[in-house]
Amino acid sequence: MTIPSLQTGEAVRQAARRGTWDRPTAGLAPGYVQTNVVLLPQAFAFDFLRFCLRNPKPCPVVDITAPGNPHPTSTVAAEADLRTDVPRYRVYQEGRFVEEVTEVTHLWGADWVGVLLGCSFTFEEALRRAGIPVRHVECGCNVPMYITNRATYPVGPFRGPLVVSMRPIPGDQVTAAVRITARYPQAHGAPVHIGDPAGLGISDLSQPDFGDPVPIHPGEVPVFWACGVTTHMALMEARLPVVITHAPGHMFVTDLPVAEAI
Amino acid sequence: MTIPSLQTGEAVRQAARRGTWDRPTAGLAPGYVQTNVVLLPQAFAFDFLRFCLRNPKPCPVVDITAPGNPHPTSTVAAEADLRTDVPRYRVYQEGRFVEEVTEVTHLWGADWVGVLLGCSFTFEEALRRAGIPVRHVECGCNVPMYITNRATYPVGPFRGPLVVSMRPIPGDQVTAAVRITARYPQAHGAPVHIGDPAGLGISDLSQPDFGDPVPIHPGEVPVFWACGVTTHMALMEARLPVVITHAPGHMFVTDLPVAEAI
Repeated sequence: MTIPSLQTGEAVRQAARRGTWDRPTAGLAPGYVQTNVVLLPQAFAFDFLRFCLRNPKPCPVVDITAPGNPHPTSTVAAEADLRTDVPRYRVYQEGRFVEEVTEVTHLWGADWVGVLLGCSFTFEEALRRAGIPVRHVECGCNVPMYITNRATYPVGPFRGPLVVSMRPIPGDQVTAAVRITARYPQAHGAPVHIGDPAGLGISDLSQPDFGDPVPIHPGEVPVFWACGVTTHMALMEARLPVVITHAPGHMFVTDLPVAEAI
Repeated sequence: MTIPSLQTGEAVRQAARRGTWDRPTAGLAPGYVQTNVVLLPQAFAFDFLRFCLRNPKPCPVVDITAPGNPHPTSTVAAEADLRTDVPRYRVYQEGRFVEEVTEVTHLWGADWVGVLLGCSFTFEEALRRAGIPVRHVECGCNVPMYITNRATYPVGPFRGPLVVSMRPIPGDQVTAAVRITARYPQAHGAPVHIGDPAGLGISDLSQPDFGDPVPIHPGEVPVFWACGVTTHMALMEARLPVVITHAPGHMFVTDLPVAEAI
């Protein structure tokens, strides 16, 4: 998807704020870092931040606001407002999905905190630039994601399994894929597992737990990266009275160039 | 300094706990990651953590405990107690040094949090293994440190200048020094500045603000890395009612092998 007018983080955020863009952000603002968004009351923010720091591969912290302040660091996104600048939000109460909305100003409290977490869109751009196929982009579908048999390190009410995304990579490009993605620790970094899905407790690659299955061609190896859905599962598990996230694929687009995400 | 009996993190921590070792940890437990230590009440911990996350080069978070829990993550240091396992602590009140002690169990409160921050001892070990000179180790003195004209990103009461450490590196080894230290983002990572000290507002390398001056040989370039003293200056600036740190050079020694700090 290429939208000529949405080529920068600022343009996407303003379109989301005005309500003229409420669709996924894949392919928008190429070259700018996109992030997961978690908005929650301060009472839970310290434990949540500790959970992210203890599980840095699935939950890389890119930015966090002061309590009550909906504006990220100006270098991350100038003039941005986390209550309005995401195309679609999801509201959860007690671990259950309640509604999907296009702005959350009415829900944001005086003590709320915004957390921005890295997203694999960043390294997919780098993989493509290096000529490494990104199958779900080729197929125009969502990346396949799997719940693994690995547990995250629990902190306070936050716990749950590690979730991974999978990209099939030609055998002779796996080394390059490792080296390239390792440069982006704030976008999940290097793979957590390469090859045998059973080693992660995944019995059938054609049945992902989230997203869509993708074909694996002869000579390709399934490569697994830590996935931001890990954070969402831990948030559901915590059954907080209320928490808001971006809707899947509807990311917050920053002003950070991908080249500087190294 | 080589102490035959203090070859592991566990051995150093137990000697500190028993009171049989209250001296600096440089050279002890070679190959194990050493860290800065900050102990403070939870009321300030969230802002302090946000300060560290906004300033990751000088303040790389290696671990953080739950409020009231003095034990780090078991993979970081099994069976450790942050109230007793540091050789010497410093206690500060309202930004002023109060006393230096060998354990702080009597000061630790039910809501206190322990934060472990990366330390350049980790990458110095890697530099030496690569045949790159580490001048202050050769000289048997403390690394020279300088207050720069760069400000840290302020968070809550925490603010202050970036402090750097300096190591003179032969011109043909600077590239290797950059590449090696870049592998250790949790130990300050790659240099923040190479060459001209004036670019950091440093007028005289022979007059460091902390530590000792070291000779720079012909053909060597001064290379500057972010320094953990940045954190201490921000803590002083914040004038918290009480905060405890390790005494300079008297680090907390973990069970993490340096090879895995990548």
